[in-house]
Amino acid sequence: MEVQAAVAKINKYATSSSGDTVEVVERPHGGVSVVLADGQSSGKGAKSVSTMVVRKVITLLAEGVRDGAAARTASDSLFTERGGKVSATLNILSVDYQTRTLVATRNNPAPAIIALRDQIKWLNETSFPIGLYRDTRPVINEVSLETGLIAIAFSDGIMHAGERYGQSLDIVGCLQELFEEEEPSPQLIADTLLEHALRLDQHRPVDDISVIVLSVRKHTGDEVRRMSVRIPLEPNY
Amino acid sequence: MEVQAAVAKINKYATSSSGDTVEVVERPHGGVSVVLADGQSSGKGAKSVSTMVVRKVITLLAEGVRDGAAARTASDSLFTERGGKVSATLNILSVDYQTRTLVATRNNPAPAIIALRDQIKWLNETSFPIGLYRDTRPVINEVSLETGLIAIAFSDGIMHAGERYGQSLDIVGCLQELFEEEEPSPQLIADTLLEHALRLDQHRPVDDISVIVLSVRKHTGDEVRRMSVRIPLEPNY
Repeated sequence: MEVQAAVAKINKYATSSSGDTVEVVERPHGGVSVVLADGQSSGKGAKSVSTMVVRKVITLLAEGVRDGAAARTASDSLFTERGGKVSATLNILSVDYQTRTLVATRNNPAPAIIALRDQIKWLNETSFPIGLYRDTRPVINEVSLETGLIAIAFSDGIMHAGERYGQSLDIVGCLQELFEEEEPSPQLIADTLLEHALRLDQHRPVDDISVIVLSVRKHTGDEVRRMSVRIPLEPNY
Repeated sequence: MEVQAAVAKINKYATSSSGDTVEVVERPHGGVSVVLADGQSSGKGAKSVSTMVVRKVITLLAEGVRDGAAARTASDSLFTERGGKVSATLNILSVDYQTRTLVATRNNPAPAIIALRDQIKWLNETSFPIGLYRDTRPVINEVSLETGLIAIAFSDGIMHAGERYGQSLDIVGCLQELFEEEEPSPQLIADTLLEHALRLDQHRPVDDISVIVLSVRKHTGDEVRRMSVRIPLEPNY
């Protein structure tokens, strides 16, 4: 088996700073976590909130704290620091080798997805953003690791895409089309969802949009771990 | 312009935990940093040291601390925590949009490289690992951002590759061959160096090997930020 993770992310149109923050961390007992936070509003204020939340969660995960506890700690920290006045959504997707599970942790009204090959399941139990109330708990879905597992989460920019024009993204349709291919890579899944959302916003996204994808696949090739990152500089640079 | 970063990493043969830790973080004022630490010895002890060092540095960079100061803080922390008995090497490669520079920070006897297109420059001023002495300073090289810039750093597994068989890796020769191609991607550069090192070790690496590459390129394509990660699970899983 191997784990692949992918992130695709774009700023709200004509803003230089995204309110979304995404980071990836290797888990100390094996496995990997992808953490996405979206700070309330957009621009610099939102960025500092989402950065704080992601840093807190990543630091705890790196110390071996479990995902649910990390999310609750981040919520209490944000609540304490900002007096319940600032919220953020938080998603954690993890492959945990210790428990041999894939774990999707959600403090986000927007749904997430777990798919097993072409079986798509919405994770849409009621879930609240962090920071507004003391002791906000995340919704956690945990499934045994097996090849073909895919978890997908996104910031609400995906849900709002096209709203301005009375349209909305058909996420399931989009995924079904992707799953007709032989094992689409997580980067292809993330890119395709983002690209569809951008098209609905006529390439001027009304909000920051981030998509994170984690996939458990048959191991092929070598034992090398790889990571690659691409960041365009601002056009005015 | 755009920035691309890549990591390729493999464990010492027949060990499940690498003493090397690599993480990537977006800088709060724009840009990206790749941080590599290699803990003394190998296995679990080394991993916990390198994880601690990388977490410390990443946390500071995310707060806007400059690279040199982050490296010195990590050194003093390790020195204080382990009483000068445990060392680690540390490399930070950053693209800093605020200063418009590429910064290579080195606490590592092993050299690093900055290349501008096919001009390869060794960064080999004397440099010491962190943790052994109070106030250990890194060697810092800083150059103005321009397209075609490439920075490369690696853990000493690259330097030791082939030693068992009386051979050593011709890094410059390897890079010159790569640079004959039109703009090799950082992932190709990292993969190729690692692959050559593995071949010299007859695919049983005597040490953890990590290669990190940062490259400044002409901006092509869309404004989407992308990250992808691939982690093979242990063969016995």
